[in-house]
Amino acid sequence: MSTPKTPPSAITAAAVASFDGCPDARLREILQSLTRHLHAFATDVQLTESEWARAVAVLTATGHITDARRQEFILWSDTLGLSMLVDALANPLPPGATESTVLGPFYVPGAPVRPYGANLAEIAAGDPAWVHGRLLDTEGGPIPGAELDVWQNGDDELYAVQNPGAPDDHLRGRFHAREDGSYAFLAVRPVPYTIPSDGPVGAMLEATGRHPWRPAHIHVIARAPGYRTLATHLFDATSPYLESDAVFAVKPSLLREFVAHEAGEPGAPAGVEGRWFSVESDFVLSRAAETHEPADPGRTA
Amino acid sequence: MSTPKTPPSAITAAAVASFDGCPDARLREILQSLTRHLHAFATDVQLTESEWARAVAVLTATGHITDARRQEFILWSDTLGLSMLVDALANPLPPGATESTVLGPFYVPGAPVRPYGANLAEIAAGDPAWVHGRLLDTEGGPIPGAELDVWQNGDDELYAVQNPGAPDDHLRGRFHAREDGSYAFLAVRPVPYTIPSDGPVGAMLEATGRHPWRPAHIHVIARAPGYRTLATHLFDATSPYLESDAVFAVKPSLLREFVAHEAGEPGAPAGVEGRWFSVESDFVLSRAAETHEPADPGRTA
Repeated sequence: MSTPKTPPSAITAAAVASFDGCPDARLREILQSLTRHLHAFATDVQLTESEWARAVAVLTATGHITDARRQEFILWSDTLGLSMLVDALANPLPPGATESTVLGPFYVPGAPVRPYGANLAEIAAGDPAWVHGRLLDTEGGPIPGAELDVWQNGDDELYAVQNPGAPDDHLRGRFHAREDGSYAFLAVRPVPYTIPSDGPVGAMLEATGRHPWRPAHIHVIARAPGYRTLATHLFDATSPYLESDAVFAVKPSLLREFVAHEAGEPGAPAGVEGRWFSVESDFVLSRAAETHEPADPGRTA
Repeated sequence: MSTPKTPPSAITAAAVASFDGCPDARLREILQSLTRHLHAFATDVQLTESEWARAVAVLTATGHITDARRQEFILWSDTLGLSMLVDALANPLPPGATESTVLGPFYVPGAPVRPYGANLAEIAAGDPAWVHGRLLDTEGGPIPGAELDVWQNGDDELYAVQNPGAPDDHLRGRFHAREDGSYAFLAVRPVPYTIPSDGPVGAMLEATGRHPWRPAHIHVIARAPGYRTLATHLFDATSPYLESDAVFAVKPSLLREFVAHEAGEPGAPAGVEGRWFSVESDFVLSRAAETHEPADPGRTA
């Protein structure tokens, strides 16, 4: 009983040193930094055993609510700002390139290829919005054939993947740029919605006085051979919650005006009879060689 | 496109500030510190999008392997040294009190109460070990009636909770100190074993060149009204892996000698006919008023 007690700093040092023999230098760097910061966090707040047990329970609940259609770990990353931080660290873009933002948890690969100007909505989903513009390189030249992979929520606030009553391909599609780089599709005007708030992340937002709302936006991923893949949003510049997005994803350069058009105004998209909106947005891609080319962002499962 | 880019530090500041309105001051402190350290980690290592996606996949797999009998999040905490750090932060003990160590993932409440000297093993499980000593206060006085909740692995390396072939109460039991503070039970000599290594934590140990072994030990929780609950181990002082416990739980003051006795030597415990061992270990509890009394450590589920 006379042996001196092990001080907390010695435990941190031993845990860090346990990775000294890691043969993969990058893995060693990541795990040693993770261990240092995890220990510094616990030490700074003097984390108690009951708080530790609570954290284990929250992580366990997060794992158990996560499945093929619900990714609560990504929601934690999003709501703690980590997703946007990783985006910012990874994306040193050349001047003029369109900025990226979070992928979010609702992207599902394999949306149907649709023709120029086609309608995303397979059932009624809100006010029509004609989205158009060009896919360009950083010198302003067109990228013929470039792909725009689009998904959005309807005026019921839901994405198709959240809505058992919607067709699988509702409000999503892939479009390809024409020879002059132009693209167009008929979307609906997006509405603000809440991130899933019935799980551990929702409980955290509630307990901390934060709200779960995201401002209205349309998701796109733009891809072309030889260019860096771009995952971004097109935000409605007049939406509520632009200043307090629950996932910190708003960048000023991504705001777009939804221009209102009355019924019968010339230029209405085919099949549109009532009020509609139009939105113009170019997407400027950087060449893969200009920056480090990351893996195509995909749904982790 | 001419709007300046958001710097990474601004994202960290916004995420931290999102908790400014948290009505619970302790929760605010914890989440703001967690956010700062999480962002500092990602920034220090310049975490890439593909590494982030890998981390999400690892956490998801950790959640999906965790159930009522397997707690992979606690294994992460143990193998990253966090469990021992929280133990060290939480346990400023008065002089002479027995040191604590990790609870581990195999504790199951509700072990049967057994009489003084009873056998823990309900089926054959290794060399008999007579464990005895006293439950004392820090002035050396006995604590009559104090409870010792014991669990250990057998020579097949398994705890009953891991072993579908073993009775539920095999190798576990609760004992109560006699008037003079003395306790005794018939255990088996514990053997080193590996923490569960077929999941994400095992993959991490393998990838980093670490081993999954723990030195031989017996778990105890000592409890008495008015005293701080103590979760600790009694380590075999001659075991392999004392210098490289996979969960960093060894403290020099917890090493004990397993004294060998030949068959037929006087003093053999009832029913023991072959070779046996004896171990003496007192457990000294601090009064609840001497330190902050934590919640009884229990299995988180």
